[in-house]
Amino acid sequence: MISKLIGRIQETGAPVVVGLDPTLKLIPEQVQQKAFSEYGETLEGAAEAVFNFNKAIVDAVYDIVPAVKPQLAMYEQFGLPGLSAFVRTVSYCRSKGLIVIGDAKRGDIGSTSAAYAAAHIGRITVGARTYAPFDEDFVTVNPYLGSDGVKPFTDVCASLNKGIFVLVKTSNPSSGELQDRITDGRPVYEWIGEKVAEWGGACMDGSYSNVGAVVGATYPEMGKVLRAVMPHNYILVPGYGAQGGKGSDLVNFFNEDGLGAIVNSSRGIIAAYQKEPYQKFGAEHYAEAARAAALDMIADIRGALENR
Amino acid sequence: MISKLIGRIQETGAPVVVGLDPTLKLIPEQVQQKAFSEYGETLEGAAEAVFNFNKAIVDAVYDIVPAVKPQLAMYEQFGLPGLSAFVRTVSYCRSKGLIVIGDAKRGDIGSTSAAYAAAHIGRITVGARTYAPFDEDFVTVNPYLGSDGVKPFTDVCASLNKGIFVLVKTSNPSSGELQDRITDGRPVYEWIGEKVAEWGGACMDGSYSNVGAVVGATYPEMGKVLRAVMPHNYILVPGYGAQGGKGSDLVNFFNEDGLGAIVNSSRGIIAAYQKEPYQKFGAEHYAEAARAAALDMIADIRGALENR
Repeated sequence: MISKLIGRIQETGAPVVVGLDPTLKLIPEQVQQKAFSEYGETLEGAAEAVFNFNKAIVDAVYDIVPAVKPQLAMYEQFGLPGLSAFVRTVSYCRSKGLIVIGDAKRGDIGSTSAAYAAAHIGRITVGARTYAPFDEDFVTVNPYLGSDGVKPFTDVCASLNKGIFVLVKTSNPSSGELQDRITDGRPVYEWIGEKVAEWGGACMDGSYSNVGAVVGATYPEMGKVLRAVMPHNYILVPGYGAQGGKGSDLVNFFNEDGLGAIVNSSRGIIAAYQKEPYQKFGAEHYAEAARAAALDMIADIRGALENR
Repeated sequence: MISKLIGRIQETGAPVVVGLDPTLKLIPEQVQQKAFSEYGETLEGAAEAVFNFNKAIVDAVYDIVPAVKPQLAMYEQFGLPGLSAFVRTVSYCRSKGLIVIGDAKRGDIGSTSAAYAAAHIGRITVGARTYAPFDEDFVTVNPYLGSDGVKPFTDVCASLNKGIFVLVKTSNPSSGELQDRITDGRPVYEWIGEKVAEWGGACMDGSYSNVGAVVGATYPEMGKVLRAVMPHNYILVPGYGAQGGKGSDLVNFFNEDGLGAIVNSSRGIIAAYQKEPYQKFGAEHYAEAARAAALDMIADIRGALENR
């Protein structure tokens, strides 16, 4: 699956993921009102607004980016209708040729992680039939429980050519509380990075592994260290834009071959219309604003890589 | 919410949670066939089997235990129909007076954790209306992202009198890879335990906090240390029974007042009919087998506490 993602990155020239993380505050009033007029101010109404919003964003960017990253929490918050909008979003994105990274951050003891892996990137058997319940291409995984909580995911990566990104150094301000603590002479994030390199060895797909890592754009120096620790693992980099990361911060996350990283922006793209310099598009043209913001982000990262 | 849980523990004399973690392998053939005859061998059929299985278990134990712990993964693996069975299960358990601990192990950056907190123990606003999407009483939380990933959950605990259990030392074999690593002279789990005590300070509900911890029955010596580190935080103890924990191992998790811990068993109760000494009940009477296993577990733990 990572070779498929790399292929799409090379075709588009854009190591960029659009984070489909809609809260109602990010969805223009007219989209909400249209959904509410049909379904009322209900969870179904919210879910319909979410899906329609996503669909317009996807229509505006699918030809310029390789992948999207819907954040499960933003759908789960609207209950079953919200998760139904997640399923519709995944399906629509795949129909447009986009690779889908489910940002689920799941992780549990072995037998339970196996159920999560089946739910998101694997298959589940019911009687004589088999289903792919949420059917993402990649999913993010939390490593707090250790190898036996991750292995069911890497097993699916190996058997079904799917992928995961393991949380190593997250983008949020308090990530360092645990992740930066020194153990055996190095920070926890570095030790987890070593484990990612180890776990990924069993799931190579070309020069890179189907097991990648999440490292926040907000910590570029750590990105440099982790790039060296995990030479064959892709890094999914959240935190660009709204969380403060800039293009010049990102070169550390890439290998010399120009590969090895893919950068996510969520609010900075999907809600571009709410902020300068994209406010001129207006709420009516939020999808065009998203496309413009995505193009600027791609140019920013390409420029930084060319000038490295 | 913790005082409500303590009240129910005292009424039943049972510091015990029944883990509602059904996989199809644990559900008797006749329950599966009945569901498949109505819905086919579909995700809907699996979900119907799961709900009917749960319902019979709940009917058999609701008067002898205070709480249940459905594991989200076991529902998520059956996609939207599975999560619908989760919602039905939560609702049915609450109608029988049981406290519901959603074993979700969620955790993300602040704004995303806020969405998970709203989904599971909080409320979400749509237009002028407010909903409680999954409506559990407690939810389990993963601390890998640090304080700002936990705070949205503790905020809901404080404002809506709900509760959480933060993963501290999990029951699985490889939990020590990260959790036992020494940092600043003590293991990671002990440091997380200190954070739980700190986070819980803002959510006291009587003598105990609405913020508790997960510490596996399989690590009783660590339970002893953590009991002292977190004197006012309830410990949810998984790993009894099928994972190897015994009643005598559990006394370490309780305070001198006989409170402070609640022990979970999943397969050991819900699939008791598959193993000695409960096979005599037969698959037909799986719910009676579950009740017998629950009564034995309660007696085991009570005996251990009386002989401590």
